[in-house]
Amino acid sequence: MFNLFSIKGGIDNVEGFFCDGVNVGMKKKSADAESSHIDGDVAFIRSDVLCDVTARFTTNKFQAAPIKHYQKYPKDFQTNFLLMNAKNANAMTGEQGVKDIDMLFVELAKYHEVYNPIMSSTGVIGYRLNQEKIASAFSKFDYNAKNSDNTARSIMTTDQFKKELAFRIELDDGSSFTIAAICKGAGMINPAMATMLCFVTTDANIPKADMEELLGEATEQSFNRISVDGDTSTNDTLMLLANKVSGAYNKEAFREALNKITFELAMMILRDGEGANKLVAFEVTGAKNEQEAITASRALSNSLLVKTALFGEDPNWGRIASTIGASGVECDDSKLSIHYDNLLIYSNEQRELDKEREAQAYVIMKNSSFKVTCDLGIGTASYTSYGCDLSYEYVKINAEYRT
Amino acid sequence: MFNLFSIKGGIDNVEGFFCDGVNVGMKKKSADAESSHIDGDVAFIRSDVLCDVTARFTTNKFQAAPIKHYQKYPKDFQTNFLLMNAKNANAMTGEQGVKDIDMLFVELAKYHEVYNPIMSSTGVIGYRLNQEKIASAFSKFDYNAKNSDNTARSIMTTDQFKKELAFRIELDDGSSFTIAAICKGAGMINPAMATMLCFVTTDANIPKADMEELLGEATEQSFNRISVDGDTSTNDTLMLLANKVSGAYNKEAFREALNKITFELAMMILRDGEGANKLVAFEVTGAKNEQEAITASRALSNSLLVKTALFGEDPNWGRIASTIGASGVECDDSKLSIHYDNLLIYSNEQRELDKEREAQAYVIMKNSSFKVTCDLGIGTASYTSYGCDLSYEYVKINAEYRT
Repeated sequence: MFNLFSIKGGIDNVEGFFCDGVNVGMKKKSADAESSHIDGDVAFIRSDVLCDVTARFTTNKFQAAPIKHYQKYPKDFQTNFLLMNAKNANAMTGEQGVKDIDMLFVELAKYHEVYNPIMSSTGVIGYRLNQEKIASAFSKFDYNAKNSDNTARSIMTTDQFKKELAFRIELDDGSSFTIAAICKGAGMINPAMATMLCFVTTDANIPKADMEELLGEATEQSFNRISVDGDTSTNDTLMLLANKVSGAYNKEAFREALNKITFELAMMILRDGEGANKLVAFEVTGAKNEQEAITASRALSNSLLVKTALFGEDPNWGRIASTIGASGVECDDSKLSIHYDNLLIYSNEQRELDKEREAQAYVIMKNSSFKVTCDLGIGTASYTSYGCDLSYEYVKINAEYRT
Repeated sequence: MFNLFSIKGGIDNVEGFFCDGVNVGMKKKSADAESSHIDGDVAFIRSDVLCDVTARFTTNKFQAAPIKHYQKYPKDFQTNFLLMNAKNANAMTGEQGVKDIDMLFVELAKYHEVYNPIMSSTGVIGYRLNQEKIASAFSKFDYNAKNSDNTARSIMTTDQFKKELAFRIELDDGSSFTIAAICKGAGMINPAMATMLCFVTTDANIPKADMEELLGEATEQSFNRISVDGDTSTNDTLMLLANKVSGAYNKEAFREALNKITFELAMMILRDGEGANKLVAFEVTGAKNEQEAITASRALSNSLLVKTALFGEDPNWGRIASTIGASGVECDDSKLSIHYDNLLIYSNEQRELDKEREAQAYVIMKNSSFKVTCDLGIGTASYTSYGCDLSYEYVKINAEYRT
């Protein structure tokens, strides 16, 4: 059928795409915990041929100006330029926020040919973009660079590490295409997207209809299943840009690659969950229907008491059970069972946690990732969402962010 | 009409009620941060004449055994004895949990005459009550004591301070009655009740129908409006016990006193919110309908990003706006306005926070309590809920609880 290879780097691997990021003085230091250099704060991704584009945006009612700007283009528009900035979300800025983007693109056109340019922003809500500072990037950009590292770093905010991934797909007929993405996000992460930006580029010859279908599917099994703190931002964006220049395409191969890239990036966001140390899968099985499975699973990944118990490595299954009961789904404590990985923690016949199983539970909870499975024993529906623990660091980061 | 006086102490003020608490070795130290003595862990409240009783219980589907035990009594039952314990919630203990209560009451009857006795428990979920330890209290109780202090301390878990209140109501005809309560709760607090126990006693000659009506009303304006962490426990109980022995009653006076006592206790829980330093009222006005006002208000009091911003004393109204937008209610950023107390923080005409208003906002946020008002500008419905900040202490308390 096809072979899928993980390759080094990010969107620099994709034929026909160019990208760069520069610092114009909005970021004072690197967001990367392990880096001492100054990250960029304005960046671009461009293609030398026009791209089809499809996107999923935040469900927040107060969509930021860049999202409103995007939505003014006609359906099925094509573009050759994406401009990005950190430190300012351009959200809650009203009509002026959209005008500010148009003004920036008038300025940008003096430096590079742009067609239906798109913008994406992340940072603090409620302030107009600094036109002068952002426009000062336009003479600094190397428009022929393929610097995915700089670009990915430029959209980082509270992220502790850079997020980029690339895959090469070789088809049986000897043709091949590439799919690659950069991503940012660490907090304000909730199902139905979060403060996350993710830009996927590909040179695959993918039809527009497949882009829509497969991006929707990819979103559902990745970004829609993670929660850091239950908050959904004004700026969330997942975008797929396809310039088709490889000429190669296979739908199943593309589906697998896109699902893989989005799922792995979603897990990277969760690993980077502000101050988080553990990645936990919350699987709910035996639910009455899918909606109830989703409700119970998300209640677990959002519960403060569950998250602090994870941080404390306390095998306190009572908080798991209580959260299921509080979520409002149909359940019965005589039908419920709870596992940590393969270890039975609770069932009707085995309610109290004896010393031996408690010791085994401790071992599992020391791992940096594990699975909590709650079988409601009511029906046949299941759902898995992904969460992380809540540490002192989360409070520190979010009490101090902005100031 | 009537005069309402706040009086010292708790349920010791109410004629015909007796109460005491003792330590049987389940608590090793006082929960009270300012106390060095050892609190009780088993306690009782009894009346020398039979009481009418009405209660509101948790909405959690996994109701604890004491609640199931209570619900086995016929409607309109009367009782003379309430037994309480801390350290063990007797939740998720199945049928055995209910049998354990009955067994304890068989034992208790050897020491004191009980009629339809009630039990209430708080603590860790998932373990059977230690019959032997709890029963050892029965010979230690002073059944004729009026020791509200010991009783209130005995139900404390993560509480930092004891919660009791009493009011005396003098009617125009010279008659009078008393209403008093003890309460526990600090975390796992969410609208629709929380890990809170509250026992209100009165000697008012209140009809049973009024007890039902007024307790429902009191719940709605107090415990149903507070949130510490969005979690709803298996054991929440608000109970009103009336022995009628004063012979005095006035419905309006009782309503005012009961609303006051439950509201003030709810605010005490919030003040004690695990690690919390600030009490914040979230008022939503101009909502499309009451349900939307409730949804938006509760989203604010539950948001981790709002709570950490409160802890950081950061006038970051973007998080307030984003939370409103994410809550799914009808809203429009050109119609929205946000106030901190009387200070306008955001409106369509005044989006960016200038230095002067930011400085004023800092002053307000330094206070130990203030009000955030969001006018959605859509309709006429309004609702206020109450929340607190999220501090390092919350994480510490809940990571370490149990171990």
